[in-house]
Amino acid sequence: MQLVILAHEQFPGRAKTALGVLRYGDHDVVAVLDRDNAGDRVSDHVTGVQDAPIVASMADAPDADALLVGIAPIGGGFEESWRDDVRTALERGDDVVSGLHYFLAEDDEFAALAAEHGCEIDDVRRPPEDLGVAEGVASQVDAEVVLTVGTDCSVGKMTVTEELARAAEARGVDAAVVPTGQTGIMIEGWGTCVDRVVSDFTAGAVEEMILEVGDDHDVLFVEGQGAITHPAYSAVTCGILHGAQPDSLVLCHEAGRDAVHGYEDYALQAPETYVDLYESLAAPVHDAEVVAGALNTVDVDDDGDARSAIADYETALDAPAGDLVRFDDDRERVLEAVL
Amino acid sequence: MQLVILAHEQFPGRAKTALGVLRYGDHDVVAVLDRDNAGDRVSDHVTGVQDAPIVASMADAPDADALLVGIAPIGGGFEESWRDDVRTALERGDDVVSGLHYFLAEDDEFAALAAEHGCEIDDVRRPPEDLGVAEGVASQVDAEVVLTVGTDCSVGKMTVTEELARAAEARGVDAAVVPTGQTGIMIEGWGTCVDRVVSDFTAGAVEEMILEVGDDHDVLFVEGQGAITHPAYSAVTCGILHGAQPDSLVLCHEAGRDAVHGYEDYALQAPETYVDLYESLAAPVHDAEVVAGALNTVDVDDDGDARSAIADYETALDAPAGDLVRFDDDRERVLEAVL
Repeated sequence: MQLVILAHEQFPGRAKTALGVLRYGDHDVVAVLDRDNAGDRVSDHVTGVQDAPIVASMADAPDADALLVGIAPIGGGFEESWRDDVRTALERGDDVVSGLHYFLAEDDEFAALAAEHGCEIDDVRRPPEDLGVAEGVASQVDAEVVLTVGTDCSVGKMTVTEELARAAEARGVDAAVVPTGQTGIMIEGWGTCVDRVVSDFTAGAVEEMILEVGDDHDVLFVEGQGAITHPAYSAVTCGILHGAQPDSLVLCHEAGRDAVHGYEDYALQAPETYVDLYESLAAPVHDAEVVAGALNTVDVDDDGDARSAIADYETALDAPAGDLVRFDDDRERVLEAVL
Repeated sequence: MQLVILAHEQFPGRAKTALGVLRYGDHDVVAVLDRDNAGDRVSDHVTGVQDAPIVASMADAPDADALLVGIAPIGGGFEESWRDDVRTALERGDDVVSGLHYFLAEDDEFAALAAEHGCEIDDVRRPPEDLGVAEGVASQVDAEVVLTVGTDCSVGKMTVTEELARAAEARGVDAAVVPTGQTGIMIEGWGTCVDRVVSDFTAGAVEEMILEVGDDHDVLFVEGQGAITHPAYSAVTCGILHGAQPDSLVLCHEAGRDAVHGYEDYALQAPETYVDLYESLAAPVHDAEVVAGALNTVDVDDDGDARSAIADYETALDAPAGDLVRFDDDRERVLEAVL
């Protein structure tokens, strides 16, 4: 499928979804929309992802199958300055994929255009209608289940999940990702945004996904969300932990982060506290062990400093750890610990 | 307000909401609808609650202000055999209060009748539209916050919450209940069904309630839900724990329960394991201590056996414990430990 990715004014630094799809998606990205960087190429701004031209609007983009909204304003609303691009895409007959809280399929103009031009609008945050409570059976699938957990939000759980799955596949392991958030869902082309389901169905939403693919693969890498100590988001984390019934956990952290992002009054705990909490909370439902750590060192300039931070993290966890994006050998060592 | 409570074929044993409203509600119950026991009185079946005649249908009920649906079938759907009663209530001009998953206000016939006769249909499980993520500020209210937590669902958290609040008020303490489930909401006349909100807003929904009343009282008794080790419902439990930011916890358990209700493959843990889990999970957000235990001995016939089970539970918790419904002295002792 040929994609155009909308990332106006936020590419690449604040375009997490756009970057995730460029880095991990199977689709051919034919253009990125960013009116601030029109005329550049993706490779002028970021490496290690597929390249594409950057253009100012959908009217300037080459033929494509779909327009994907690759950024989100605070609050997840729709930014009216994007309306022309979405309208143009639908008028061209392209599908639209969005992870906004505001559902584009419920926008009167977009719904009418989609009907007129035979396009689909896929609001990936919309939960399926038929979710229910967990039955407590996820561990019965054939696959080994690996869950990424974190010390906080936005420490790299989605990235680590994708890196581990790709590295496992490169070794010939039949691995799959179970995506639980919008970027993972856009990369993988399926999944449920677990943070949008009815709270009673949190574990059930994850369990349903595990059951859907768990007998078809040898290893599932489940994308975690939030943190078990997060003042706002721990419910989702807890539901994923008990719904997925993982065998192994990879504890993700960002080097230098010492307070909860956006909740700066809340200090982060020592890494070993998270190990204890995740393992002791998992155990009554299904035993899970923190077998490795993933340290995001994106804000550490010097490689030596990054290696040193990783060594400290490894010592605290008493398990292999590394930055899976920065260091290839780290990725392989962490994968060894997981498999 | 004068209430009629619908409890067909399930009164009293399987009519938890009806019994809760009869026991703790401030309203005058003028009749209970139960076609199986028409002609009896409530006091023929259960003691310690307000008495009322039992009649076969709404057509036989005396004048009232509202009909309250006091039972729920498995799954929370609407039982068509109740339609005549709801219709009659609306035709009489009575409001209807329901905690079903099926929203009566969205039933075409009921909506039309309510509009025609100027009645309100209050579906208490419908979450407010304006919920958001928690800000992590519940502990800033003036009130001391006490949360009931459990070893499982249906061990008596709502009952213990109401008993403690009433006992505290009887001592002259300015106490209030923060209800999080349908029965508590019906008793208290306000509140949010936390298990029905968007999962990301679980903690936020509780926090909003704490902020709403927390500066107007000296002690808040927050109704807990589920259990932190429940294979399906732990997300809601965790969100309440971190959203409410309680100072004290009362661990509720049912004597003789040794597996998760409805999930019999999952053994319950030793009481001290729950103490450790709740306290260690609460601590990174706000320190909370299990200061007392509540043991539901409803299925223990002999008072001596009940006392003995309570003594064992007290030893395991290393904190005062008791059956707050069965033994008045227990209620006072547990309250002492909480205040």
